[in-house]
Amino acid sequence: MALNVNENTHPVPDDVAADIVARVATAIGGVNRYPDREFTELRESLAHYLGHGLTPENIWAANGSNEVIQQILQAFGGPGRSLLGFTPTYSMYPLLASGTGTVWLAGARDAEFELSPETAVAEITRLDPDIVILCAPNNPTGTPLSLETIAAAYDAARGMVVVDEAYAEFMPEGEPSALTLLPGRPRLLVSRTMSKAFAFAGARVGYLAADPAAVDALRLVRLPYHLSALTQAAAVGALAHSDEMLGMVGEIRVQRDRLVRELAGLGYRPHRSGSNFVLFGGVADPHATFEALLAQGVLIRDVGIPGHLRVTAGTEAETTAFLTALASLGRPDGAQSSAAAPVGSES
Amino acid sequence: MALNVNENTHPVPDDVAADIVARVATAIGGVNRYPDREFTELRESLAHYLGHGLTPENIWAANGSNEVIQQILQAFGGPGRSLLGFTPTYSMYPLLASGTGTVWLAGARDAEFELSPETAVAEITRLDPDIVILCAPNNPTGTPLSLETIAAAYDAARGMVVVDEAYAEFMPEGEPSALTLLPGRPRLLVSRTMSKAFAFAGARVGYLAADPAAVDALRLVRLPYHLSALTQAAAVGALAHSDEMLGMVGEIRVQRDRLVRELAGLGYRPHRSGSNFVLFGGVADPHATFEALLAQGVLIRDVGIPGHLRVTAGTEAETTAFLTALASLGRPDGAQSSAAAPVGSES
Repeated sequence: MALNVNENTHPVPDDVAADIVARVATAIGGVNRYPDREFTELRESLAHYLGHGLTPENIWAANGSNEVIQQILQAFGGPGRSLLGFTPTYSMYPLLASGTGTVWLAGARDAEFELSPETAVAEITRLDPDIVILCAPNNPTGTPLSLETIAAAYDAARGMVVVDEAYAEFMPEGEPSALTLLPGRPRLLVSRTMSKAFAFAGARVGYLAADPAAVDALRLVRLPYHLSALTQAAAVGALAHSDEMLGMVGEIRVQRDRLVRELAGLGYRPHRSGSNFVLFGGVADPHATFEALLAQGVLIRDVGIPGHLRVTAGTEAETTAFLTALASLGRPDGAQSSAAAPVGSES
Repeated sequence: MALNVNENTHPVPDDVAADIVARVATAIGGVNRYPDREFTELRESLAHYLGHGLTPENIWAANGSNEVIQQILQAFGGPGRSLLGFTPTYSMYPLLASGTGTVWLAGARDAEFELSPETAVAEITRLDPDIVILCAPNNPTGTPLSLETIAAAYDAARGMVVVDEAYAEFMPEGEPSALTLLPGRPRLLVSRTMSKAFAFAGARVGYLAADPAAVDALRLVRLPYHLSALTQAAAVGALAHSDEMLGMVGEIRVQRDRLVRELAGLGYRPHRSGSNFVLFGGVADPHATFEALLAQGVLIRDVGIPGHLRVTAGTEAETTAFLTALASLGRPDGAQSSAAAPVGSES
């Protein structure tokens, strides 16, 4: 089973899939024409989904959040400009910077991959970036980010501040999003994706909310008709069923919290996570553990952090299979192995 | 009616649409997973469609041929490098160059927008570009381009030579494509689109054929998973019905040739066209003619060439409506107007 790229392992529910297919069928009927280059209906649907008083003028979308971030760098970065991220963070940021001729600046984090307002401000002051990107929760560590840090980073930065909320829907319920910070902050952009919470990785839909002037800047760099009529129809269909699509999120959170709990019980050191995956330390030989799990049919991810591996929270059965396979390898601390005991039996 | 952006005005046939929708429905079933980032089945389908002994290793695809060309410029252009095109030509080339930090060089054409081998070689020698792009047939003029010019340009150029064959399927039957020049020319790239002949503008599928090493260079600059599972499924479906999809091309060629003939009969100066549109000169006031046609419900295109307008070849009925509306405006040469006579009555 694939628990390596933080996909949502729950397929789209059948009734939602049927509605999406019907909408795509309508789009195919007019596919000889160019799509709506302003993707107006999709922007309306996204604004409605996000709430927070956002209107379609605040919304942008592209083929995956990587393309959204690339467009941000095309508009606000480029040769002679710089992008600051706080490492370890999403591995595409330096690649997207390089692809647009933007200098990548790697800022430091606090212990346990946390990022305090003080550290964020100190790194922004030290490195003086043109653009700051904050991954919240952070990939590959899962670390949530406080609104205090985001607000302090915004005040310290002289340019655009991007908050990448790809995994925001997996935060504990009631936890505020950076969307709440948008009013009065015209340099703030909050990006999202439908890949994770909406189980839509194959459809490639990323989006963001920002001041309309920032959105207009992205209009200048996008290719004409960058979002296909099929993409627009499928995304509008999924968003029409937000409640049902997000029903899976609660189940995934339960398995995520179970991973944190049981990984600790197995002798590993899981980090706190607000996302659909868990990074855990205490792995003596990550490569060997990765291979041993793979030999049992469980694919997870070595993200290159010494002593650590990352696993996606899948279904209950997938999570059980992963934990059982990991337990079978023996305790990392050399204590009495609990491999023979079933794990996850309480859930 | 919209005859302004060279769409195929024929919808996808119902049986083909049904097969496409069935394939998309299957893709939706797995849309929670990332798509095949190598889009293997699509590359196989495109190689089979193009023929000429091409294999999937020769094929690349992206979200529209604009994205294909953007990726070519990301891989082979960029700051300190230049792109030469022969103007007037496709208006996106200078914009794509600018967006990737590539210098745009505007080469000259011969009379009647033709491009002889001698002129192409002279301009390449004079301007010494890193990349040459040849639009064949040329947009917005419709001008076909000989293989002799392409081969001569290739020999004269020191870098990549891109032949943009977006409209190639509308060339007279039996006319050879630049695909025939690929063997032994590792710096040659031939781009195509499904937007025109395949009536697939809304689906955003561009592609190219080239040496596998050139294709590998594009792999380095594309975003991961740049082609959605829906796009891949829909395109494979359309390509499975190539014969039926291309059945419309013959009808469009007939209307294109009729436009050239009847525009001349109305006193305008149409240019020869190998595409699904016709550029015609002899328009005293293009803006006024554009507006007068629009007032009659016919939308065509002022492409900014003095004394000229461009019209897409639509269905027989659309072509008749355009010619009738144009005839109603009176003869451009001031001769006795034939506005009262029906046009196109022979077809």
